[in-house]
Amino acid sequence: MNTRISLLLFLAFVFSSAALAAPEMSAQTRACLGCHEKYTPGIVADWRGSAHAGTTPAAAMAKPEIERTVSAAGVPDGLRDTPVGCFECHSLNAEAHKDNFSHFGRKINVVVSPDDCAVCHPVERDEYAKSKKGMALNNLRDNPVYSLLVDSITGVSAVENGRLAAKGSAYSTKAASCYACHGTEVGVDGMKDVETEMGTVSVPNLTNWPNHGVGRHNPDGSRGSCSVCHPRHGLSIEVARKPHTCAQCHLEPDTPAWNVYAESKHGNIYESKGEGWNWSAVPWRPGEDFTAPTCAACHVSLLAGPDGDVIARRSHDFGSRLWVRLFGLPFAAAQPKEGNTTALRNRDGLPLPTTLDGVPAAEGLIDEAEQVRRRDTMKAVCLSCHGATHTDGHFAAIDHAIDESNAMTLAASELLARAWESGKADKTNPFDEPIEKKWIRQWLFYANSVRYAAAMSGPDYAAFKNGWWNLTENLGEIERSSGAADQK
Amino acid sequence: MNTRISLLLFLAFVFSSAALAAPEMSAQTRACLGCHEKYTPGIVADWRGSAHAGTTPAAAMAKPEIERTVSAAGVPDGLRDTPVGCFECHSLNAEAHKDNFSHFGRKINVVVSPDDCAVCHPVERDEYAKSKKGMALNNLRDNPVYSLLVDSITGVSAVENGRLAAKGSAYSTKAASCYACHGTEVGVDGMKDVETEMGTVSVPNLTNWPNHGVGRHNPDGSRGSCSVCHPRHGLSIEVARKPHTCAQCHLEPDTPAWNVYAESKHGNIYESKGEGWNWSAVPWRPGEDFTAPTCAACHVSLLAGPDGDVIARRSHDFGSRLWVRLFGLPFAAAQPKEGNTTALRNRDGLPLPTTLDGVPAAEGLIDEAEQVRRRDTMKAVCLSCHGATHTDGHFAAIDHAIDESNAMTLAASELLARAWESGKADKTNPFDEPIEKKWIRQWLFYANSVRYAAAMSGPDYAAFKNGWWNLTENLGEIERSSGAADQK
Amino acid sequence: MNTRISLLLFLAFVFSSAALAAPEMSAQTRACLGCHEKYTPGIVADWRGSAHAGTTPAAAMAKPEIERTVSAAGVPDGLRDTPVGCFECHSLNAEAHKDNFSHFGRKINVVVSPDDCAVCHPVERDEYAKSKKGMALNNLRDNPVYSLLVDSITGVSAVENGRLAAKGSAYSTKAASCYACHGTEVGVDGMKDVETEMGTVSVPNLTNWPNHGVGRHNPDGSRGSCSVCHPRHGLSIEVARKPHTCAQCHLEPDTPAWNVYAESKHGNIYESKGEGWNWSAVPWRPGEDFTAPTCAACHVSLLAGPDGDVIARRSHDFGSRLWVRLFGLPFAAAQPKEGNTTALRNRDGLPLPTTLDGVPAAEGLIDEAEQVRRRDTMKAVCLSCHGATHTDGHFAAIDHAIDESNAMTLAASELLARAWESGKADKTNPFDEPIEKKWIRQWLFYANSVRYAAAMSGPDYAAFKNGWWNLTENLGEIERSSGAADQK
Repeated sequence: MNTRISLLLFLAFVFSSAALAAPEMSAQTRACLGCHEKYTPGIVADWRGSAHAGTTPAAAMAKPEIERTVSAAGVPDGLRDTPVGCFECHSLNAEAHKDNFSHFGRKINVVVSPDDCAVCHPVERDEYAKSKKGMALNNLRDNPVYSLLVDSITGVSAVENGRLAAKGSAYSTKAASCYACHGTEVGVDGMKDVETEMGTVSVPNLTNWPNHGVGRHNPDGSRGSCSVCHPRHGLSIEVARKPHTCAQCHLEPDTPAWNVYAESKHGNIYESKGEGWNWSAVPWRPGEDFTAPTCAACHVSLLAGPDGDVIARRSHDFGSRLWVRLFGLPFAAAQPKEGNTTALRNRDGLPLPTTLDGVPAAEGLIDEAEQVRRRDTMKAVCLSCHGATHTDGHFAAIDHAIDESNAMTLAASELLARAWESGKADKTNPFDEPIEKKWIRQWLFYANSVRYAAAMSGPDYAAFKNGWWNLTENLGEIERSSGAADQK
Repeated sequence: MNTRISLLLFLAFVFSSAALAAPEMSAQTRACLGCHEKYTPGIVADWRGSAHAGTTPAAAMAKPEIERTVSAAGVPDGLRDTPVGCFECHSLNAEAHKDNFSHFGRKINVVVSPDDCAVCHPVERDEYAKSKKGMALNNLRDNPVYSLLVDSITGVSAVENGRLAAKGSAYSTKAASCYACHGTEVGVDGMKDVETEMGTVSVPNLTNWPNHGVGRHNPDGSRGSCSVCHPRHGLSIEVARKPHTCAQCHLEPDTPAWNVYAESKHGNIYESKGEGWNWSAVPWRPGEDFTAPTCAACHVSLLAGPDGDVIARRSHDFGSRLWVRLFGLPFAAAQPKEGNTTALRNRDGLPLPTTLDGVPAAEGLIDEAEQVRRRDTMKAVCLSCHGATHTDGHFAAIDHAIDESNAMTLAASELLARAWESGKADKTNPFDEPIEKKWIRQWLFYANSVRYAAAMSGPDYAAFKNGWWNLTENLGEIERSSGAADQK
Repeated sequence: MNTRISLLLFLAFVFSSAALAAPEMSAQTRACLGCHEKYTPGIVADWRGSAHAGTTPAAAMAKPEIERTVSAAGVPDGLRDTPVGCFECHSLNAEAHKDNFSHFGRKINVVVSPDDCAVCHPVERDEYAKSKKGMALNNLRDNPVYSLLVDSITGVSAVENGRLAAKGSAYSTKAASCYACHGTEVGVDGMKDVETEMGTVSVPNLTNWPNHGVGRHNPDGSRGSCSVCHPRHGLSIEVARKPHTCAQCHLEPDTPAWNVYAESKHGNIYESKGEGWNWSAVPWRPGEDFTAPTCAACHVSLLAGPDGDVIARRSHDFGSRLWVRLFGLPFAAAQPKEGNTTALRNRDGLPLPTTLDGVPAAEGLIDEAEQVRRRDTMKAVCLSCHGATHTDGHFAAIDHAIDESNAMTLAASELLARAWESGKADKTNPFDEPIEKKWIRQWLFYANSVRYAAAMSGPDYAAFKNGWWNLTENLGEIERSSGAADQK
C-alpha cells in the first residue's frame, strides 16, 4: 500500500504545483466564492475546472493566431489580467440588463448573455446572432405557418358536446417543448424574495426561465445562449465538440441528426475510440486529434492539417458549410441567404422556401455558385480522411436522396390536396386532422430522415427507422384516408 | 521499448504490493475459489475487483459515520474480520432458504437475498422492502386492474371461426416481459442433476429463474434483488450510480426516464464528462465528485457539500424524495403513503389513486405537508448547482406539465366513455380493443412522457418523441374511432 | 507547472523510445506517406495507430498459437518483415482487381478486399465468405421474395388519376438503405479525372461506391468487407469487439440486437465498466479482460479461461454458434446448412425456411444434433459467468419466446389469408397494402423483437418497445382491417 500512496502523493504534488501557478482572481470573484463555494458548490467546482479559471484574457490573446479562441482585438483593462471568474462575467453591460440587481453590495446580472461573452468573443457572437440558430425563436414564433403548426401540436383539447374542442396552447407548454430548444423570451417581472441558507434574498423575478434555447431572447436584448453548447460554468470546448450536446435538440423523429450519427460508421468510431481523443486542441487536427468527425468537426470547428494549413475555418454560423436545407420543410431547398427565414416568400405568398408542391422561392435563397462554394468547404473536411471517389459518391447519394424524398412528399401533398378538394378534410387549419397529421409525418419525420440518413451515412435509419419503410407505409395510409383507395 | 517496460514493471509492482496487503479470505471461500476460479472465472474476477474482496466488515465499520456504507451496528463474529467472499454471502440464514443445498460438503444458498445482505446493510434492506420497488411484483400481480392490463398485453391469440380468440397469457411470457422488471416468484421444485466440467452435480431446481426484478420473491421469503442495481459479484456502488443501471427498466415508451435523461443537459454532461468523475466516493459531493446528477444523485445517494454538511440523506426507498407519481397512471397524483399500492381505493372502489376522470382517492395518499417536505428535499439537490429562481421555475414547469397532461388524458377518457356508452366499444375488458389501446397510449405513453420530460428537462422528448405531437395526434384518432368525428 | 511539464516530457520520451523501435516501412509505403500524410492525414494517423503499423507478419506469426491473429501458414517473402502499410495492402492480387490503376508510377487497387486480407488471414476469409454475412447481398437480391419486399419498401410512388402509381425502386435508394448493410455490387466504369490539391489525378470510376455492406461484391470478384467491422485504416480488433460496430446494422425495429443489448444487464455493465476492459487481448478472457460480453464475445471471439483452455473457438462465420434463426423471417426456424439461403425451398416451393404458416422446410436446415452442438457451444460462453441453473433457465425462455411469437405470427397470417380470400386485399404483391404492412410489422418487427429480447435478456423491450404491446395491439388492427371485426 505504501508504494501506491507514494505515487498518489507525487501526483498530488504535481497537480497542486500547477494550481499554485494559476493567475490570481479578482477581489470581487473571491467574494462571490466566499459564499457560493458553500451554497452552490456544483457551480464553483464546474468553473474551477474550466479554461476560464486557469488563464487570463491576456494570456489567451498572446497565443499564435491559429490557436486563439479569444477573437477580440483587445479586452478592457480590468479584465485582461485576471481569470474569467464569477464577477467578470456576471457584471458586464449592467445598463442593458433588465435582470441586473444589487446582491450583497454588488450589481450582478442573473443571465450571462452572448453580448457579455462578446467582450472577448465578438466574432463568434456576430456569426451566431445573424444565423438561423440565433433567429430560432423568431423563425418559429413569427412565421404564421410554423406558429400555427406549434399551436396545433401543443394545444390542449377538451370534450364539449361529445366532440373535441381546441382550448389553445399555453406558453408553459411551448416553453417545455418547442421553445425549450428554439428559446423563450426571458423577461423580468420585478423582484421577489427567495429563502436561502443565507436567509431571505431579493432577486429579479425572471419569466419564462429557466431556458437554454439557441434563439433565446435575453433580458439585455441579445439573442441566443452560449451555455447551451458550452455548458454551464465550465463553458467547455470539449463538451461542445461532443455529439451529445447537439443531441439535446437534433433528435428523432423530426431532426434525427444524433440518431443517424450514432448508427453511422463515424458514430461507431466515436463511441469506440473517442475517449482517447484530444478534445480541446485548437486547431483541431483530423487523424491526429480525432479519427472520426463529430457534429462540430463538420459544421463548426477550425480544422487544420499536420502542417498547420487550415482545412476549414471556424464558424459559429452553423449553416455556413451547408448548401441545402434538409429538415423542417416539406421539400429540401437551397439554404436561405439570411438567418431570418420569416422574410422568405414562395410563389403562393407563404413564408416558406418552396411551394407546397416543391417549387423553390425566386428570391431569398443562395444561388448555385454559393451552393458550390459551401459544398466544397464541406468536401474539404471529408477529404481529410476519404479519397475523392468516395467523397463524390457520397455527395451524389445526398442529391439522389433529396430527389426521391421530395417525390414522396409530393405524392402525399397531392393526395392531401385531393382530400381537401373533395371535402374529406378541411384545409382551414392544415395541421389538425388525422390525414393532415399523416401528411406532416411524411415530410417532417420520414422524408427528412431519409435525407439525414444519406447526408450522415446512417443507412439503416433510411431503411426502417423513420425512412423508406415509413414513407411507403404512410403514403398508403394517406391514400386510404384521402378516399382515393375507395375507388379500387 | 525498454523504458516502457520498466514503467509497466514499476506499476505492476505498485499494484501487487497493494494486493499483498489485502485481508485474508476464509477457508471456506478459498475452497469455493479452488474450483470456481476455473469453472466460472467471470464470477470470480468480478468479485476480486469488488469492495467486498478488498476489505472486511470490521474495517468498513471503523469509518467515520458519513463515509460508512455498512449500516449494521454490529456484525457477527465469524464475518467481521474476513473479506466478504463466496461463502460469507451464500451460506447465510440457511434455515430460511428453500434453495439451500449440500454442495461438495458445504451448505450453500443459490440465491443471495436482501435478507442476507441485511446482515451488514439492514437499513437499506428495510427501506427497500417497504418501498414501491420492493412491492413491485405484488403491486402489479395482486391489483386486479393492473393484472388485467398485463394479461391483455401479453396474451396469445389464435384465429377461431375467422375471429381472434384470447388464449391467455403464459407465465413464461410475463416472466420475459413485465415480471422481468417487477420480479418473479422464485421457487424450488426439488433437486435436479446438471452436467458440469466437474461431473454431475445435484442442485436445487429453481422455478421462474433467472430473474432480476426489483420486487422478486426469493426462496427465503424476502422481497427484492440487490444485484439488479449493484450487479452481480462486483456489487458495485459505481454501477448503481450510473444511469445505465436504472435504464434497464425505466425506458420508453411507458417510463422513459433514461430516454429523457439522455437528451437532457444533465445527460449531455454525463455523457461528455462522466468518465472523469469519482463514482465511488461516500458521501458523494456535487461539483467535486460529479458535475451533473445521475438517477442515483437525485433519488438515492447520500450527498454532501464541500464541508461535509449533508445535502440529502441516502435512502433505498427510491420514492422518498418524490411528492407526486408521474407514471403508470392515467392521472398524476400524490405519492401513496405505503409502498403497497394495492390497498388504495378510488371513489369508484377501484384499486387506483384516482378515478378514471382524475379525482384523487380520499385516503392513502400523502398530504400536502408531506408533499412540501419531499419537494424541499429534492430542491436541496437542485440548489447545489442552480440558483433559487432557476429551481423554482423548474418546479413550476412540472406542475404545469401535470395539469396539461392530465387534461389531455381526461379528454381521451371522456371519448372512450362515450364509445362504451354508444356500443362502439365494449368495456368488459377496458384494455383489449383498438380504441382502448389508443386510450392506454394516451396516458401510459404520452401523458407520462410529457411529465417525465418536464421533471427531468428533456423538452425535445415532450415535443415529438412520445409527447405533445402524439398526445394531439392520438386524441384525434381516438375521436375518429369513437364515432364522434362522424358527426362532423 | 514545471513539474507537470517534466512528467509530460518523461512520458513523451517513453513513447518516442517505443516508436523508434518500430520495424522499418517499405520504400513504397514511405512514398505513399510522402503525399498522403499531407493530403489525407486522417487515414495516415489512423493507420499509424494500428497493429499493422507497429509490427510485421513475421513477428505476428511467431506468437504462440493461441495468441496468433495471422492464420496463414506462411506469408510471401516481400511482406514478411515489413509493417503492413499502404502499399502492402493496396497492391495485392492486382490482376484480379478491375479497380487497379497506375498512380504516380505504382499499380494500386482502390478497394482492399477480403481476398487481399486473406494473404495473412485466410481462415477468416474462408469462414466469412461462405457465411450468411458473406452472402448477404445475394440472399437479399437473388431471392424473389425478399427482392419484392425490398422493392415494395423502397419504391417511389406518384399520384396518377388521383391514385398512387408505383414508379419502381432506384438502385441509389437501395444502396442508401438495404444494400448499405447487405452490400452493393461495386463496379468500375472506366477512369475519371478528379481535381485534388496535387492537381488533376486520373482514378477508376467506381460504381455503387462508397459502400461498406457485409456482403459487398468487390471489383476483384470477392465478397464482403473486412473494414465494415474493423474500421478503416486502423483495422482494429478493439472496435470490432465493441457493440457499436454491430449496431450500425443490427438495430430496431427489424433486427434490434443493439437496442436489446443496451438495455440488458450485459449492456448495463458494458456501459458502466467497459472503458477499463482489455479490448485487444488474444485470447479474450471472461472475467479477466471483460466482465460482461459484447456481441463479439458470444458470436465471434476466441475465448479462453485463466489457464488458457479454450472456452469458444474464434469464427468469422458469425452464425456458427447459433442453432436457430430469430429474425428476418415470419417464423423462427433452425439455421440453414449453407450461407446461401436462396437455395432453400419450403413445402409451397417458396425460397423460405418455413411456409407462411410456419412449417419448416424438409431440407436445407441443420438437424437436431447440430442444433444441440451449437447450443452447447453458446452455453459454454454463458457458463463462464453463470451457473448451470441460470443458463438452462435462460435457454428455456428463448424456446418459450419462439413458440409464443410464432403463434402470434400465425394468427396474423391467418387473418391476412382471410382478407386475401374475401377480396379485402390483393395477394398479387403481398407486401404493398396497408393490411400487408401490418402483417409485415407483426413478424419483421414485433415477433422478432420478442425473440431477440429473450435471447439477449432485454425484457423491457419485449414488453413495450416493439414487443408484446405491439404484437397484441397490431393483431387487433389486422383483425379490424381484415374485415373480421365487422362481424362483431
